[in-house]
Amino acid sequence: MEALSRYYRPMKVSQTFIPTLREEPADAVIISHRLMFRAGLIRKLSNGLFAYLPLGLRSFRKVEQILREEMDAAGFVEMRSSVVIPGELWKESGRWDSFGDALLRFKNRLGADFVISPTNEESFTAVVRDELSSYRQLPLSLYHINTKYRDEVRPRYGVMRGREFTMKDGYSFHAGEESLDKTYQDMGRAYRRMFKRCGLTVIPVKADSGAMGGSGSEEFMVESEVGDNTLLLCKACDYSANVEKAECKPDYTPCPSIEAARAAAASTPPVEKIHTPEVKTIEELCNFMKTGAKSFIKTLVYRAVNSELEAGEFFAVCIRGDLDVNETKLAAVLKAAEVNLAPAEEVERLTSTPVGFAGPVGLKKLPVIADPSVCAISDGVTGALEKDYHLRHVAYGRDFTAWMTADLRTVKAGNACPHCGAELYEKKGNELGHIFKLGTKYSASMNMRYLDEEGKSQMPLMGCYGIGVDRTLASVIEENHDENGIIWPASVAPYHVIIVPIKYSGAVKAAADKLTDELELAGIEVLLDDRDERPGVKFMDADLIGIPWRVVIGDKNLAGETPKVEIKHRSEKENRLVELNKASAELSSKIIIELAEFMKA
Amino acid sequence: MEALSRYYRPMKVSQTFIPTLREEPADAVIISHRLMFRAGLIRKLSNGLFAYLPLGLRSFRKVEQILREEMDAAGFVEMRSSVVIPGELWKESGRWDSFGDALLRFKNRLGADFVISPTNEESFTAVVRDELSSYRQLPLSLYHINTKYRDEVRPRYGVMRGREFTMKDGYSFHAGEESLDKTYQDMGRAYRRMFKRCGLTVIPVKADSGAMGGSGSEEFMVESEVGDNTLLLCKACDYSANVEKAECKPDYTPCPSIEAARAAAASTPPVEKIHTPEVKTIEELCNFMKTGAKSFIKTLVYRAVNSELEAGEFFAVCIRGDLDVNETKLAAVLKAAEVNLAPAEEVERLTSTPVGFAGPVGLKKLPVIADPSVCAISDGVTGALEKDYHLRHVAYGRDFTAWMTADLRTVKAGNACPHCGAELYEKKGNELGHIFKLGTKYSASMNMRYLDEEGKSQMPLMGCYGIGVDRTLASVIEENHDENGIIWPASVAPYHVIIVPIKYSGAVKAAADKLTDELELAGIEVLLDDRDERPGVKFMDADLIGIPWRVVIGDKNLAGETPKVEIKHRSEKENRLVELNKASAELSSKIIIELAEFMKA
Repeated sequence: MEALSRYYRPMKVSQTFIPTLREEPADAVIISHRLMFRAGLIRKLSNGLFAYLPLGLRSFRKVEQILREEMDAAGFVEMRSSVVIPGELWKESGRWDSFGDALLRFKNRLGADFVISPTNEESFTAVVRDELSSYRQLPLSLYHINTKYRDEVRPRYGVMRGREFTMKDGYSFHAGEESLDKTYQDMGRAYRRMFKRCGLTVIPVKADSGAMGGSGSEEFMVESEVGDNTLLLCKACDYSANVEKAECKPDYTPCPSIEAARAAAASTPPVEKIHTPEVKTIEELCNFMKTGAKSFIKTLVYRAVNSELEAGEFFAVCIRGDLDVNETKLAAVLKAAEVNLAPAEEVERLTSTPVGFAGPVGLKKLPVIADPSVCAISDGVTGALEKDYHLRHVAYGRDFTAWMTADLRTVKAGNACPHCGAELYEKKGNELGHIFKLGTKYSASMNMRYLDEEGKSQMPLMGCYGIGVDRTLASVIEENHDENGIIWPASVAPYHVIIVPIKYSGAVKAAADKLTDELELAGIEVLLDDRDERPGVKFMDADLIGIPWRVVIGDKNLAGETPKVEIKHRSEKENRLVELNKASAELSSKIIIELAEFMKA
Repeated sequence: MEALSRYYRPMKVSQTFIPTLREEPADAVIISHRLMFRAGLIRKLSNGLFAYLPLGLRSFRKVEQILREEMDAAGFVEMRSSVVIPGELWKESGRWDSFGDALLRFKNRLGADFVISPTNEESFTAVVRDELSSYRQLPLSLYHINTKYRDEVRPRYGVMRGREFTMKDGYSFHAGEESLDKTYQDMGRAYRRMFKRCGLTVIPVKADSGAMGGSGSEEFMVESEVGDNTLLLCKACDYSANVEKAECKPDYTPCPSIEAARAAAASTPPVEKIHTPEVKTIEELCNFMKTGAKSFIKTLVYRAVNSELEAGEFFAVCIRGDLDVNETKLAAVLKAAEVNLAPAEEVERLTSTPVGFAGPVGLKKLPVIADPSVCAISDGVTGALEKDYHLRHVAYGRDFTAWMTADLRTVKAGNACPHCGAELYEKKGNELGHIFKLGTKYSASMNMRYLDEEGKSQMPLMGCYGIGVDRTLASVIEENHDENGIIWPASVAPYHVIIVPIKYSGAVKAAADKLTDELELAGIEVLLDDRDERPGVKFMDADLIGIPWRVVIGDKNLAGETPKVEIKHRSEKENRLVELNKASAELSSKIIIELAEFMKA
């Protein structure tokens, strides 16, 4: 074993730092947080701030390396921005003001403004901007894997939602839509491979791109009880979407035009005003009117923050009585940073009636935005814009029209898939990755230009592509564990094999050392539990830390004519005896096959 | 080449991002800064904040990996603290207050205190403290390679003195002196290997441990015109020291005791007071007294900040007239955070005479600290503690004694080596690494304990071991360049070979692609300059970015019976023709031998 050189050191448990714990940490809600803490992968320095201990860092680095390999294979080039970024760049992009309080801003001792990066659009754009002159330099695809910080008010779930975390974030720069689209599609495929190689099942969903701006975007979700996101999935086809953006097949006959709406209302009686005292809810109103919520035209007044439409600040939104307005969709339609229900006094001022009696008929002071569900109503009920009065026999197209028609409906489990019509169901999900087409958002705000083939100044298109490394690692554990601990996929396991000598001395020690050396020489990563502990303690720790293969070496099995050892995969219940002399060949071939499985496209 | 898989991509210049520049950056003073900028290794985001571009990051990672391998080989285990650390931990250690303004302190949105780590004693101690119970867990040696931040007022010299930088910092925990000493010695050897592997000549010097506290420490310096440190080196032996701590062989006969001093003064006339009006400088006084500066006893009043000695705040320091007081030595002797010359009004109050007439004879209000050079004076001149008067025929031991005697002399070029007596000379140096014995500084302040073999609670001893990664990389360039650019040592070169086709098309392209694939298959890292640029431009860039081996492929040399290519090492002037078919074998064997050279112990 001389050839292994001075850089070869068998890793013994006594010589590393794996502080395992029997007790559950008090503040850990989700299984990955509990197991990362108990298996000695992480320790908390403060809320949302964690140290990765040696075992955790090994798996963390393997996830990083998988991301790196797939980014490189997709033609991205690794560089590295600083973590601290001059505030000037964030002021140029406008996000110094718009990002919100999660952006950690600070002043240095000279009074200059800085941020600790939560993401790096600004710094990558600044670097490329200064070097870019010609279309010949495009496309350019760069990424880094670097520390990020978000000043979370409520960090929780361990590294799943920490304040400091590591993100792989890539940025691409293009001379045209086609080039951007190609890279975006390449990234979609690369992301699928990354997660597969980590042993993760992800749900790719069309997502609203939120504060990041831009058009096309796709989120990569993992199912999670404590997920921040609600996903709508089709039972029959592969449709999946974040509720913020999910659509569904209409459960009504859509109205193709105003003329069609008028025609449909041909036999509807004229509008009639009804006195409706003491009627507070839609349910009460339906009982009173002897009709269903599907005949009711619900009218809500919203205030749009920083809408780009210049149609004022307030809008009336009409939707069918049994449906809910999706505020994310509404904000997107209004090109607004966000939308909020208007305060009661504003509603009264704009509708000239107390809250509860708004309706689109005769509404003058507000632009009406109608969900298509409302356009299909040819004999409905709505507020009369007068206290204690409603209207019935209201028909869209005849009695009112809309300033704009847009899908604003919150899709729910049970709605019909927009692709195939089958039933949708809901899941809670956590976002691990996100790819976006940013368009010219940063090119425009940060003044990045290039000269095209005809010598004209153009704004490059951009895409951005992020994955949370810590979250990805925690999600691997969420998906791969049992009641005794972690069950690492071979691709991201901190070690491939744990060797547990019943007592690390004499012939057992010699066999354990020899097997360790043989496996390491074959490229297999081995952890040798040399501690002077009871076998039960070592077995429990081995299960907890979840190394894929366990080898138990004891005097009894070594004593026979052909010395044997016990091997077992972490997911198996029973040990199997194999000859000591054949153990390294058998284990290494199994592990190499397992690793190769993860690499299949 | 199918076997190279989808993860193999020959790296072409057109597909990466290497923005080289002909012009010198205006703000770059030192050669490494100029070359890192011009060769497209880094770009500035703000003063002291840099992005590493792809080429720079590749070399950066190689330096990191060398440090990692040597730390691992020395038995250290890698983990990773967060970069942002709760202020609480820094308050526990006391450094929240004592570290000074280079510590970036900030409050999060909830008002809690945090720092961006400039170093990680606190977080490593906190993690280990919570897990440590028994001597059986010791020694424990941990490290990380992570982002650091120092709020420098004047960042300069590129990444040599940035605000954000990467440091490899290790921390070891021990149950006794012997164990700490072993790890400290191991690190000394590991550091020598790390720098050698990077192609660097370092000067290890005994250093004052400054604000870090503790006893034994060694700095690893590189010579630099703009170095922050002055080093004293012996022309004959291997003595080297930072001026802050340097000693020298006395240039006088040392006085072994007070008795010996009194005996030496036996024939000295009694002290005589001389009127010395209009005499301001030591030189004027020497002329007036017709004596040399070596007979003058210079007396300075110092104020010690936070001295642990409890002997008051002010001290009189006596040293021979031609010598200077080394304030770092004085602070160490007084166990003070720092020392400053006392303001004139304090000097007048404490010596009862204006500045310029202080002396040790009859001085009551101040403890006198004497440099040994003063103890050897048996017939000297000094201030009379009275305006316009001096004393002559002053003898140490007879006319005054010292509260403490200590070496306080600033050693200078020309002084004699304390080991061998040969002449010392000076160099300016930059510190790349530093190893310290911290002792119980953090164990005590942060209350870290373990139970020893007898069940008694003990404080672990600690050591800490840092290296600046960015500085190390920049220093490699300082030591390895010529007028045309960088000359990378093979061990940290971003690529081993650059292939320059005269025109990347036809037979030349085919030969370039084939050679690239062959070399990559042999584990050699190749950059292929596929750009449509003039050969002169490509050659200039190749020299600038400093890839060790250059292969030029052109139609003319390919056309003969045996096709040939030109190869040249970056440090050579002339090309050499080799057969195309033998080029990959010749280059890869040369490079493997070069790499192996760096690995020799």
